[in-house]
Amino acid sequence: MDTITFPDSEKPFLEPYLPNNVSEKDLPFTTLTFATSLDSSLSLSPGTQTMLSGPQSKAMTHYLRSRHDAILIGVGTAVADNPGLNCRIQGVGGYGGGGLQGQPRPIILDPSARWNFDSESKILVLAREGRGRAPFIVTDSWVSVPTEKRQLLERCGGKFISLDAAAGEGGFDWGELLRCLKLEGLGSVMIEGGALVINSLLEPRFQSLVDSVIVTIAPTWLGQGGVVVSPQRRFDESGTAIAASRLKDVKWHPFGEDVVLCGRIQ
Amino acid sequence: MDTITFPDSEKPFLEPYLPNNVSEKDLPFTTLTFATSLDSSLSLSPGTQTMLSGPQSKAMTHYLRSRHDAILIGVGTAVADNPGLNCRIQGVGGYGGGGLQGQPRPIILDPSARWNFDSESKILVLAREGRGRAPFIVTDSWVSVPTEKRQLLERCGGKFISLDAAAGEGGFDWGELLRCLKLEGLGSVMIEGGALVINSLLEPRFQSLVDSVIVTIAPTWLGQGGVVVSPQRRFDESGTAIAASRLKDVKWHPFGEDVVLCGRIQ
Repeated sequence: MDTITFPDSEKPFLEPYLPNNVSEKDLPFTTLTFATSLDSSLSLSPGTQTMLSGPQSKAMTHYLRSRHDAILIGVGTAVADNPGLNCRIQGVGGYGGGGLQGQPRPIILDPSARWNFDSESKILVLAREGRGRAPFIVTDSWVSVPTEKRQLLERCGGKFISLDAAAGEGGFDWGELLRCLKLEGLGSVMIEGGALVINSLLEPRFQSLVDSVIVTIAPTWLGQGGVVVSPQRRFDESGTAIAASRLKDVKWHPFGEDVVLCGRIQ
Repeated sequence: MDTITFPDSEKPFLEPYLPNNVSEKDLPFTTLTFATSLDSSLSLSPGTQTMLSGPQSKAMTHYLRSRHDAILIGVGTAVADNPGLNCRIQGVGGYGGGGLQGQPRPIILDPSARWNFDSESKILVLAREGRGRAPFIVTDSWVSVPTEKRQLLERCGGKFISLDAAAGEGGFDWGELLRCLKLEGLGSVMIEGGALVINSLLEPRFQSLVDSVIVTIAPTWLGQGGVVVSPQRRFDESGTAIAASRLKDVKWHPFGEDVVLCGRIQ
């Protein structure tokens, strides 16, 4: 089995940025995490997966997954990557541990229900094999999902969740979405991508919903035309452009060839 | 005087990436160095200067300048920033030291000689005060510089250098340019920006001319519309997009709120 271990020695630097105790708030603890190149690209082009970070960073991602109740991606990433979205850390459920202990719930944002998963999609195969949880797919309330599709998902333990998309935007209001996930019993959410999801979450009106940021940077430039993380420009009262977002409580942790940046939104 | 000190404790990590002994090659030791945001921006918009990195990183830049014979920028940066381009480290010429010892030669790439400096431009003021060297301005051979402008520069100890621009490109061939600087007695060159200069130097045909890369990254996203470092896309033999450039011998050094990345082009 493709089990991953993450060394104990690397855990302390992450600890202050991870969900710790169950919060009484109506929002889950929200971690934003992704890996980019030096030129802030997630991949070489839309719909392709680019191997960016090294094996240590990959192990870290799986460790982070084990520490969150849910991991969230946009439908673009689901379509492009056919991702497993499970946790392969030694000792979690399906990888040496019992049940689904330590397996996060995958959340797919898919307002128009365009993701054409089938029974062989990696995420459903893993769910059937007891090596991950089936996804919750969040769609706009106005979209009707074919019964067959809904049943396939439910047979694996997943479900569709209906939520009103934000008026005129084709996406969800992050506050409403996160509150909805908390009501589903998910006390912590790790948001992994892709670029549309990340850039939307970093918009001025939403970024305060983020509790922790954990970014891995690889020492490579992908070059122009990549899928770039760069939020909308922000302006001050006088209309002058200012930085879109800045982190505080910053820690940089060299990690193999990469660096891991931990921080909180200022 | 606005003298800067750079602590001895921070120097060892930089040392392997700095010019050490005079090379017999016809090329200078070439260091590429700049500071970006997490989304690879040098500044919020063209022609503006954005305070990105902290005081430690600024001190490092001045220390790096003291270790190079020349520092090079493009005309866009000269016009936008009215930069001093000197070194203010305690002990160099003009800052506690004698003569111009440790002061790098500023090189401005200005193919069409469009920079309208005058006697009050910061770089010339510093040169007259003995706190920096006057610049060498590299122009296309076909451009004729007004006598008055030439004399003003030469009175301060600078000069214009004529070089054939690369055919049809409006810029110089980096190999020819760097050889030309070596012939001027400049054994090491630190290339500081702006984005056009950096992206050009990182093109596949030029990047092997770079001996060291030293990049400071600040924990902030400037947002879309910034002045971005991202080289041209590269393709393999089959026409598939591949990463534009990757670093080897990588070291990450946390530095205040920022991180400094040292490496060599792979």
